[in-house]
Amino acid sequence: MKIPVQPTPIRVPGFRFAGVRAGIKESGKRDIALIVSDVPATVAAAFTTNRVKAAPVLVGIERAAAGRLQAVVVNSGNANAYTGRDGLVMARRMCALVAEEIGINQKLVIPSSTGRIGVRLPRRNIESGVRDACRHLSPDAFHDALEGIMTTDAFPKFATAGLIIDGREVTIAGMTKGAGMIAPRMTPTGHATNLTYVLTDAAVSVAALRRALRVALPQSFNAIVVDGDTSTNDTAVLLANGVAGNRPLTPTARAFPELCGAITRVMQALARMIVKDGEGATKLIDIRVHGARTRRDAERVADTIARSPLCKTAFFGGDPYTGRIVCAAGYSGAVFDPQKLDVYFDDVQVVRRGEEVVGKIEARAATVVRKPEFTLIIHLHAGTAAAHRIASDLSVDYVKFNSDYRT
Amino acid sequence: MKIPVQPTPIRVPGFRFAGVRAGIKESGKRDIALIVSDVPATVAAAFTTNRVKAAPVLVGIERAAAGRLQAVVVNSGNANAYTGRDGLVMARRMCALVAEEIGINQKLVIPSSTGRIGVRLPRRNIESGVRDACRHLSPDAFHDALEGIMTTDAFPKFATAGLIIDGREVTIAGMTKGAGMIAPRMTPTGHATNLTYVLTDAAVSVAALRRALRVALPQSFNAIVVDGDTSTNDTAVLLANGVAGNRPLTPTARAFPELCGAITRVMQALARMIVKDGEGATKLIDIRVHGARTRRDAERVADTIARSPLCKTAFFGGDPYTGRIVCAAGYSGAVFDPQKLDVYFDDVQVVRRGEEVVGKIEARAATVVRKPEFTLIIHLHAGTAAAHRIASDLSVDYVKFNSDYRT
Repeated sequence: MKIPVQPTPIRVPGFRFAGVRAGIKESGKRDIALIVSDVPATVAAAFTTNRVKAAPVLVGIERAAAGRLQAVVVNSGNANAYTGRDGLVMARRMCALVAEEIGINQKLVIPSSTGRIGVRLPRRNIESGVRDACRHLSPDAFHDALEGIMTTDAFPKFATAGLIIDGREVTIAGMTKGAGMIAPRMTPTGHATNLTYVLTDAAVSVAALRRALRVALPQSFNAIVVDGDTSTNDTAVLLANGVAGNRPLTPTARAFPELCGAITRVMQALARMIVKDGEGATKLIDIRVHGARTRRDAERVADTIARSPLCKTAFFGGDPYTGRIVCAAGYSGAVFDPQKLDVYFDDVQVVRRGEEVVGKIEARAATVVRKPEFTLIIHLHAGTAAAHRIASDLSVDYVKFNSDYRT
Repeated sequence: MKIPVQPTPIRVPGFRFAGVRAGIKESGKRDIALIVSDVPATVAAAFTTNRVKAAPVLVGIERAAAGRLQAVVVNSGNANAYTGRDGLVMARRMCALVAEEIGINQKLVIPSSTGRIGVRLPRRNIESGVRDACRHLSPDAFHDALEGIMTTDAFPKFATAGLIIDGREVTIAGMTKGAGMIAPRMTPTGHATNLTYVLTDAAVSVAALRRALRVALPQSFNAIVVDGDTSTNDTAVLLANGVAGNRPLTPTARAFPELCGAITRVMQALARMIVKDGEGATKLIDIRVHGARTRRDAERVADTIARSPLCKTAFFGGDPYTGRIVCAAGYSGAVFDPQKLDVYFDDVQVVRRGEEVVGKIEARAATVVRKPEFTLIIHLHAGTAAAHRIASDLSVDYVKFNSDYRT
């Protein structure tokens, strides 16, 4: 897997892209993105579990259910969320325009939006922008499209992987956006404002693609926490257009685990970038909980620490304050015996059987916590279940940014 | 009810107080507090629900169960939490010293600690400090004791109420401390680092006192959220020593509702002070959720907003960003129809039937959100249940303070 830092051209056979400026963003940057497959592709998609779902999410859930799709149209700068009936009309209108311009059925197009919540989409900008995007489609415009989906992102986020299936070279390329309002909890029937599009020219059955998404999500986007706010717009779309010409992969195909692994790795790389670019974030912490009674308990502990303002500010301060971690584990709701708790920063054990390890260890622990990335391991000794969360710290800049900006 | 701002002397007949300097706090401020009743008092107590309970909480749960108590000994500057066997030995030692000095059974004394987690209590300072406190007991030292329980508090927090029972004048006086690690979820069998002591000279049966605490807690300390971290040490103790000479109040007594109301009001006043003094807090927000399907759903919505970093930073910025509120309600887990949602800032309706109210209202809403105190009302139109939370905002100072200080 390559994670290019420079925008070297990314191509996925059979896919074309566009990213244009429609004047929706005040910054004047690209704010309409379009991804089109030359032929109908199989699709697996997941959407926010937030009960308040943005209009494009409602439309997307309906259309992705059919298992086939040919285009994704995205605007940034406006989330088209809680915009009532007008929102739904506009979400469908975006798709209809694409369908009309490129001559396909509008049911094969799904919309996405990201940006401010609660404001109607500016109809004229959307209409002229979408038309403009349709006329600028190019196999080489992956990065233009990626720019078009960005909002508060400090850098573009993409990852690619290649593999051989049936002797055919297959490409997987993913793009994602998001920095704040990040705690995606997506389900294949309906859950981020994290927008992610992963494209492949492999031929993959709908069932296999859905399986791959179900495997990849818990290990990638559903494992990340920036602020703990789960957006109204989170969307992850996996498209496979079969242009590579391999025999379509089913869930039982021999090559399926390999494809599934590659998709997972691409999505994990993308998800980590979201946390690295978390609003105001100065650190990325891998929180690994082991020895829980149940997976739910392991997730409770990991999630509680990932969201705890006291833990997150200590991480920001580079302070290995284990008391706050033990406290967060304690109120998470998980069942465990505090006397058995072990806690490590990377390989430095800071809590042993529920008591703080004192002495020289403190300086070593402090060195770990000052690193831009480290792993926090909590062993509950209550069972065999585990969970992993990837979290950012909570910084002064996060508060400054979000108290004075309307995401 | 009076909430004096100046430390006018507070007396509760039959109670004596002390607050001394034992050198536990680096600041050199008072760090040992003692409250003693002249006679054994009935007690109702609630402790943190955190699974990691500080040593004094474990001792307190055991001793409060007996229903009778005569003294509370508190140290600040050190939480005596996750300090293992030594912690329990020291918690009991504090009580034994008091018992020895004032000549009562040590089972009638409960300990409390607040401050840094994970560090052993300094034995010598504790021992000399507790002895010193016992020798300085005075009916007039309420404020000394209060100072002795404070940690990051910017101001002392106390409230009083008076009422007539059986023709006898009865006093209720409460003191509390806490500013960070505040999301008390106390239960009468075991739940705050919020420490609260409410004293009355009324004669009240154990059953009645427990009932009063059970009524008061959900409306006071269990309704507040600063950062959402529930401490290992939260403790609320209600003592009634009967010195007023009324016939002991049972839960069915005619005067019980009045006493219960007065205790609730004192505890509500104290709880609000905690939020006002929340670390870095610039605002107090009353979050009221109505029309929920169940009380649990109403609490979910109120709690999620009270903890949401995006809502809290918007409050800090004085931004009536309803999108973030609607989003938080949406991912809270509560069941409701987003198309029916109504949201108000004080009396300004900002969301009507799931859509943002636009126009002049925005300026009025902004005026409300810039106030130091305002009410946020969310009506779900899904049922008849309601919940109330009292929350602070999330400021730059909160992050600075907690990234750089070990509470």
